[in-house]
Amino acid sequence: MNNAYSGKEVEDKLVWLGKFGGNPDGGVSRLLYSKEWVDAQNALKKLLEEEGLAAQFDEVGNLFGRLEGTTFKDETILTGSHVDTVKNGGIYDGQYGIIAGFLALKYLKDTYGPPLRNLEVVSMAEEEGSRFPFSFWGSKNIVGHPSVEEVKHMEDFDGIPFEEAMHKAGFDYKKDPQQVRQDLKAFVELHVEQGNVLEKEGKSVGIVQHIVGQRRFTITLDGEANHAGTTPMGYRKDAMNAASRMICAINDMALEHGDPLVATVGKLILEPNTVNVVPGKATFTLDIRHTHKDALHQFTDEVTAKMNEVASQLGVRIDIDMWMDADPVPMDPNVVKAIQTQCELNKLDYKMMHSGAGHDSQLMAPAMPTAMIFVPSRNGISHSPHEYTKPEQLAVGVNALIGALYELGYKE
Amino acid sequence: MNNAYSGKEVEDKLVWLGKFGGNPDGGVSRLLYSKEWVDAQNALKKLLEEEGLAAQFDEVGNLFGRLEGTTFKDETILTGSHVDTVKNGGIYDGQYGIIAGFLALKYLKDTYGPPLRNLEVVSMAEEEGSRFPFSFWGSKNIVGHPSVEEVKHMEDFDGIPFEEAMHKAGFDYKKDPQQVRQDLKAFVELHVEQGNVLEKEGKSVGIVQHIVGQRRFTITLDGEANHAGTTPMGYRKDAMNAASRMICAINDMALEHGDPLVATVGKLILEPNTVNVVPGKATFTLDIRHTHKDALHQFTDEVTAKMNEVASQLGVRIDIDMWMDADPVPMDPNVVKAIQTQCELNKLDYKMMHSGAGHDSQLMAPAMPTAMIFVPSRNGISHSPHEYTKPEQLAVGVNALIGALYELGYKE
Repeated sequence: MNNAYSGKEVEDKLVWLGKFGGNPDGGVSRLLYSKEWVDAQNALKKLLEEEGLAAQFDEVGNLFGRLEGTTFKDETILTGSHVDTVKNGGIYDGQYGIIAGFLALKYLKDTYGPPLRNLEVVSMAEEEGSRFPFSFWGSKNIVGHPSVEEVKHMEDFDGIPFEEAMHKAGFDYKKDPQQVRQDLKAFVELHVEQGNVLEKEGKSVGIVQHIVGQRRFTITLDGEANHAGTTPMGYRKDAMNAASRMICAINDMALEHGDPLVATVGKLILEPNTVNVVPGKATFTLDIRHTHKDALHQFTDEVTAKMNEVASQLGVRIDIDMWMDADPVPMDPNVVKAIQTQCELNKLDYKMMHSGAGHDSQLMAPAMPTAMIFVPSRNGISHSPHEYTKPEQLAVGVNALIGALYELGYKE
Repeated sequence: MNNAYSGKEVEDKLVWLGKFGGNPDGGVSRLLYSKEWVDAQNALKKLLEEEGLAAQFDEVGNLFGRLEGTTFKDETILTGSHVDTVKNGGIYDGQYGIIAGFLALKYLKDTYGPPLRNLEVVSMAEEEGSRFPFSFWGSKNIVGHPSVEEVKHMEDFDGIPFEEAMHKAGFDYKKDPQQVRQDLKAFVELHVEQGNVLEKEGKSVGIVQHIVGQRRFTITLDGEANHAGTTPMGYRKDAMNAASRMICAINDMALEHGDPLVATVGKLILEPNTVNVVPGKATFTLDIRHTHKDALHQFTDEVTAKMNEVASQLGVRIDIDMWMDADPVPMDPNVVKAIQTQCELNKLDYKMMHSGAGHDSQLMAPAMPTAMIFVPSRNGISHSPHEYTKPEQLAVGVNALIGALYELGYKE
């Protein structure tokens, strides 16, 4: 096949869906089980049904729209993404994967008729963790480990319990939370990159081979707070100086290690944080990500050793606390290959890459063959009303998805 | 002469004076013109009078206690320090110079009778700048440039105007603010070091030859805030990384330059300061001090050039704002010599040094020959209830002051 999906239809539908929870400044706030969320899911259901897709919610509020297959009736290819947003997010993150999935199914039906396997688009209930301190509620329910005991006791920032919010929206826990659909044979998620790699490299499509693993740390340095005027340089145990040497080393080591490793010191707090006092205490975070577990662990070991060495040299006490340790998730080579084959057929300028951010696909991947497609994000911005992808870039992404679903759903 | 002043009298009097504004935790809060301040000055006046010293306030509330000289009646040697404290300060900073001055005059009178020149101890109204955003009110009035127009419009943290507070305490502006006493021929200030040099080097007495000049800066770095997972190391403009390289360079350059130069990055604020976002903005302060103006300026130039170079290399915008520029103040060689001569006679283990902190003496020095004497501060701590100097160390300081005043007041 050679597809030529184009036009402003994708953007128009994103703007339409973005009105549910839309703010005057162009941002969207659509938190799990809120009124805006319910309205959006119901509007999407209507949209699917109008196009002749069989639409239904599961117990927790994931919305599925189905294009029935003719031959392999117990095999379903799933696409889609999450319908919730961060507070004051943009109209691309999540939404794009749903709208693009809908348009891809419509295009395939109109162009090629019914597929061999069932094709479904899913509007997943929740991924961002913006209302309750818990994320991936949608995909976790699909793959059968929703951690019900955990969410049961959660409240949102207004003190509303999770269950109350869920019931009010018309949903409930799954009767059998471990129950998983056996017909799901593949998942393809189309998403904005939320980074600037495609933009910088002038590529239209990213085919994701791995979602990075990440480890997060809090490092606490205890030196000595001293008078900035009366304490000679040689007598100091300056926590800011020690932190600076560690941060320089972390950045140098990460640069030298090279992609796909990233290491970030995003947060730093000094005490007493006063112009004329040598800092006695520094607390900073470290976020390390890599597509391969061994590399992630080895880099952690190297950086830890280096930080301990610097602390020892400068006479400051150091505490390194690792509070997140998520393994990398590889995408399925066959699904990746399906996407790649169609990108080549359709002459799309693609890049094999990894995702440095977390996605529903990392939950889906252990349960079914999964891969992701990215389109560029202007300036790499996301989780902001300034999130933006050009209409023609959005259309190219839909074409890539059409190709992938054709490859997976229309071939023997 | 060979003096052997000793005993717990100094500490007893410090504890006594510390009760005026004393907090339950052992700290002292005695802000300019407060009730505690008025009570302390009045109690000191009574103490001076009971010892037979002629005591009087000037118009603004500096308290002088005078031991009349027999021969050079128009020549006065002044000692003392400031009676105000920081909020929740200790009982040594300021107080010690007043109590020691009083005890020195008492000892000299009792031991040698009246001096050739008048000896006076002064309890200066204010040095710390803790109540109003203005410091050195006491010494500025003594030397004739109190900047009345500036203080006139000031209010304290409770909105009480400066004038109202002054009038309520029973004082007023000087009728002729530029008028300066012509009889003041020398000033010697005894003070706790507020640093850890004497303690580290095991010396009893510091003789100050310079008070450092200081320059203070705010440096603002504008990079790019990016997603910590999706932004490869090579595409970043990380303000924290840039700041770290500058701070390492500042510390390296200061260490290499050596004493008496000190350079301190005491405060740093990141934006957005979040674990999973590459810092887009870093704002930090730099405090540079040196005893010599040329060296202070040259180091500033070198550090500024280095910071600009780092910013340029890393592609972050930099703004360097110098908001304080105070020249170093040399102490008078003859007064220094007088202190040194007596320290040697009395076999006191002294060190020639500089003051890295600001003191009343830097205001006095341009108006009259001035020098300072330091005693050790435990762990270099000051401006804290934990400020501490041992009774025997306090006594050694009083002996050094007795010697200096003897040299200046009892010799032809």
